Amino acid sequence: MTCQLWYWPDFPGRGEFVRLYMEAAEIDYEDMARLEGADALVEDMHARQGIRPFAPPYLVDGDVCVAQTPLILTYLQDREGLGSGELETDLQLVQLQMDIADLVEEVFRTHHPVAPGLHYADQMDAAYEMAHDFRENRLPKYLIHFENCLSANGGPFMLGQQWSHVDTSLFQLMEGLDHAFPRLMERLQGNFPYLEGVQSTVPDIEGVAAYLASERRLDFNEQGIFRHYEELDQQ
Amino acid sequence: MTCQLWYWPDFPGRGEFVRLYMEAAEIDYEDMARLEGADALVEDMHARQGIRPFAPPYLVDGDVCVAQTPLILTYLQDREGLGSGELETDLQLVQLQMDIADLVEEVFRTHHPVAPGLHYADQMDAAYEMAHDFRENRLPKYLIHFENCLSANGGPFMLGQQWSHVDTSLFQLMEGLDHAFPRLMERLQGNFPYLEGVQSTVPDIEGVAAYLASERRLDFNEQGIFRHYEELDQQ
Repeated sequence: MTCQLWYWPDFPGRGEFVRLYMEAAEIDYEDMARLEGADALVEDMHARQGIRPFAPPYLVDGDVCVAQTPLILTYLQDREGLGSGELETDLQLVQLQMDIADLVEEVFRTHHPVAPGLHYADQMDAAYEMAHDFRENRLPKYLIHFENCLSANGGPFMLGQQWSHVDTSLFQLMEGLDHAFPRLMERLQGNFPYLEGVQSTVPDIEGVAAYLASERRLDFNEQGIFRHYEELDQQ
Repeated sequence: MTCQLWYWPDFPGRGEFVRLYMEAAEIDYEDMARLEGADALVEDMHARQGIRPFAPPYLVDGDVCVAQTPLILTYLQDREGLGSGELETDLQLVQLQMDIADLVEEVFRTHHPVAPGLHYADQMDAAYEMAHDFRENRLPKYLIHFENCLSANGGPFMLGQQWSHVDTSLFQLMEGLDHAFPRLMERLQGNFPYLEGVQSTVPDIEGVAAYLASERRLDFNEQGIFRHYEELDQQ
């Protein structure tokens, strides 16, 4: 059955972590708000009853509706029989995906530290301070964490030779950081060989290669999570 | 087998969501850093190899080590055979637990909008703005969400008559909000009858009642997530 992904249509954001995995795993899906528009997304989300999504992205698969990026990815992994078969390993993959989601939220807060509903221009002073701490403390702490975890199985992927949703997400994360913080990421180059390895290897996955060459792939822009504001990057 | 919980010993924080569920489900556990101190926690976490926790809380159960509060709770639920038996329902519980974790992070950011490593006193201006937006926009949005979901099965618990980890977490969330924002929560009283219902019913769960009456229960204080700073509450 074809899945339906609901996410904002105009920027990669959190939805792109889901798209990339579906493309890597060659799962049929309809990208609903890109077909029907952002208003259709708002309408669909508000019409849902019972225990419902708090925010996009969410996935509809027949009677199942599931939100929260790490949970969507775990659901798809199990649906496609792409889990490792080991409970502890599968738990570690979800855990890493939640660590990635936490970092993604911190990236968003570099330009929206005070209020997600206000414009960046209305919170620039706090953003400047937040981005400084992010560059100096938070991001290195996360990158060291992912690098250590990647090294455990020798690379190139988190589980070694077999890719998982964690790898497509780490790829997207590194691409987003390169877009948002080009000077910082240039300075860090060479410090995280495993992360650089996963970033350069994921595009070779057949489904990913086809996707990246297609018009379905959205470029980063100045909406959503990964935005380039020169004053928030390394000086 | 006895589980080991690792979390900071001096405030309830995120660890309390795990403790409450273990106490409700009457699961044997050792609260390691309360037995051995915060240094032992730092040492244990740094000594872990392979795919490891990014931050406390984490749970050790024999060979399994699992971090991230929603994942720990899901793991414990499945270990104890306390799931609903329906895939879609169990997914919804994890999803709600992740929504709660997101809100908990926003509560933390009301007093630490700029840098988790800096003191509150060094980010008070941004905190004041952040807390205003939290009180006016973000918190009501989350509370309406949880209220709507709770109403789906008629209460008092998320799934109706049977409690789950979502209910113990919603209880802790409401208690924390009452501590941090007493004037705001007083103003909101009566607006969220289902949330008030779950908050008043969870303490009747036998294991929870015993826990709340014990010395194991940690009071809120001015560390961790839920802190009362008068200037961040409703004026």
